[in-house]
Amino acid sequence: MAERTEIEELGEFGLIDYLTRNITLQNAGTLLGVGDDAAVIDHFGRQTVLTTDLLIEGVHFDLAYTPLKHLGYKSVVVNLSDVYAMNARPSQFLLSIAFSNRFPLEALHEFYEGVYHACENYQTDLIGGDTSSSRKGLIISGTAVGEVAPDRFIRRSTARPGDLICVSGDLGAAYLGLQLLEREKKIHQEHPGVQPDLENQTYLLQRLLRPEARRDIIAFFEEQELVPTAMQDVSDGLSSDLLHICRQSNVGCLLYEEKIPIHDQSRNMALKFGLDPTACALHGGEDYELLFTIRQEDHEKVTLSEQISVVGYLTEPAEGTYLYSKGGKKHALTAQGWNAFRS
Amino acid sequence: MAERTEIEELGEFGLIDYLTRNITLQNAGTLLGVGDDAAVIDHFGRQTVLTTDLLIEGVHFDLAYTPLKHLGYKSVVVNLSDVYAMNARPSQFLLSIAFSNRFPLEALHEFYEGVYHACENYQTDLIGGDTSSSRKGLIISGTAVGEVAPDRFIRRSTARPGDLICVSGDLGAAYLGLQLLEREKKIHQEHPGVQPDLENQTYLLQRLLRPEARRDIIAFFEEQELVPTAMQDVSDGLSSDLLHICRQSNVGCLLYEEKIPIHDQSRNMALKFGLDPTACALHGGEDYELLFTIRQEDHEKVTLSEQISVVGYLTEPAEGTYLYSKGGKKHALTAQGWNAFRS
Repeated sequence: MAERTEIEELGEFGLIDYLTRNITLQNAGTLLGVGDDAAVIDHFGRQTVLTTDLLIEGVHFDLAYTPLKHLGYKSVVVNLSDVYAMNARPSQFLLSIAFSNRFPLEALHEFYEGVYHACENYQTDLIGGDTSSSRKGLIISGTAVGEVAPDRFIRRSTARPGDLICVSGDLGAAYLGLQLLEREKKIHQEHPGVQPDLENQTYLLQRLLRPEARRDIIAFFEEQELVPTAMQDVSDGLSSDLLHICRQSNVGCLLYEEKIPIHDQSRNMALKFGLDPTACALHGGEDYELLFTIRQEDHEKVTLSEQISVVGYLTEPAEGTYLYSKGGKKHALTAQGWNAFRS
Repeated sequence: MAERTEIEELGEFGLIDYLTRNITLQNAGTLLGVGDDAAVIDHFGRQTVLTTDLLIEGVHFDLAYTPLKHLGYKSVVVNLSDVYAMNARPSQFLLSIAFSNRFPLEALHEFYEGVYHACENYQTDLIGGDTSSSRKGLIISGTAVGEVAPDRFIRRSTARPGDLICVSGDLGAAYLGLQLLEREKKIHQEHPGVQPDLENQTYLLQRLLRPEARRDIIAFFEEQELVPTAMQDVSDGLSSDLLHICRQSNVGCLLYEEKIPIHDQSRNMALKFGLDPTACALHGGEDYELLFTIRQEDHEKVTLSEQISVVGYLTEPAEGTYLYSKGGKKHALTAQGWNAFRS
């Protein structure tokens, strides 16, 4: 090959755009393809959503501090989160793993205990997969299938100026859990005798190692007959993920720093590390919360849930994408979320 | 962990059995789960099949002699082969890849050219996936979705004693293509100046590097209103794959060596390498042909296709699983197919 373009010049999303730019769909049943949390297939009265995620040792997780049971659980949850982000209900799951001979059966047993536990919790059937050896490390590929009533799935591309921006739960905790574990790993490497100091950090660790998907929020929407105008899950960080909605819906946004929900443990840990808690929430990623937009007239409905925060509103595209800081300044929002191609 | 059981003690299928032994299905729509080429989901009038496969550099392919475009094509085809093996028609495809920074964009472009070409050839929509970095090497995970009319999907577990065993095409060529390329690679490593001698071996190379899935056989079944009693694709080798049908259907079998279809190029190459052509066909794997069983009264129908060979018949389970050799001896069939856990 004569030319050589480094992938990092494009970034992950630039790469996806590039690789998928010429897709033409051939099946009438394919309602939605690449570019959302999951694809949508029409099945004569019900619609099916499909989504898939890769988890690779050394890139997405570190077995030095990740219990295999939690990793199995998380491998399911990260996919189910994408199903919920379509306003769908997960129903089936396929799991492929590849592993080197350093893993004994007992390790796989533990991993699958977590997988089955998640499947049971979320009433999802494990229906298939593939197992293989790897040259090095553990490789996990999950594919989730979900169901949604006809045309009730929610895209990223259908938000409008004036809509309110909402997030579930709180943000930044998984990132801070990661910082904490990375610090303890380093200390342990330098001083093998020292025990890790993880007391009172259960929340941060659980958010990183064993996250849950926000099924309760989808149930709340149904109870309240609330239909978000756009939705996705927060996997790369609020900033990066909100910019997806803005780009795909062709809108601007104004986010209020003071409205961004941050857990006390996250805030304290951020300060301990000398990090800005807001930056952790904006760019941390792996929160698996739901980010969605609603019409202004639905504002009262979301106030009924303590699990939902209104964090800003959408604007005309020409107005740009901004964060309004506590200090009263407007900062341009940037996508500094987890970038798989930056080392 | 106190215990340590090496995975190779179980083998791939023992491992799958172990890991899936406690599955209980929770969704009424899940018609068929783990243990076949693909899972089956009911969708109000149509049924959906789902199947997924991992391809890992250094385990499943060697980029020293695998053109990326062909690899992209094959990544789709190996999954579609599983869909056809259910008697279904592929409709959608999800593709995840992870790659290290040694791959420039041009390499991914080539790979995706092959992916799109296969999707176009097989009228299948690429609807999603995931991209990620890897620590080392290229990792590919494909998931195919297919459609089948209600209860027309064909399992591995429904064959009966007396049924005829049939295979499409010919067997062993992909394995011999692999032997050829491995030999040339070794020669090239030892004598970098020597050009590879691959003349007149197009068939073997194409079978390994750019296989096709047997859509034509499924179309033939429909034309002839022929419904196999059991079916699967030949990915691990005729012997290993036929033993799956025998085990899952609780039947024995008698295979006739002289009936096993072997291409002239395969036979010649096997002899050049000092290999038994029959052993290559039985244990070689990666043929992506269809192995299926039919009722005796359907025998005449299959004789209408030059692409189908009758290679034996099923017996009562107590009669065991045997190959009747050209020399008139009975040999116990063994699963020596590609074993991911034997190094």
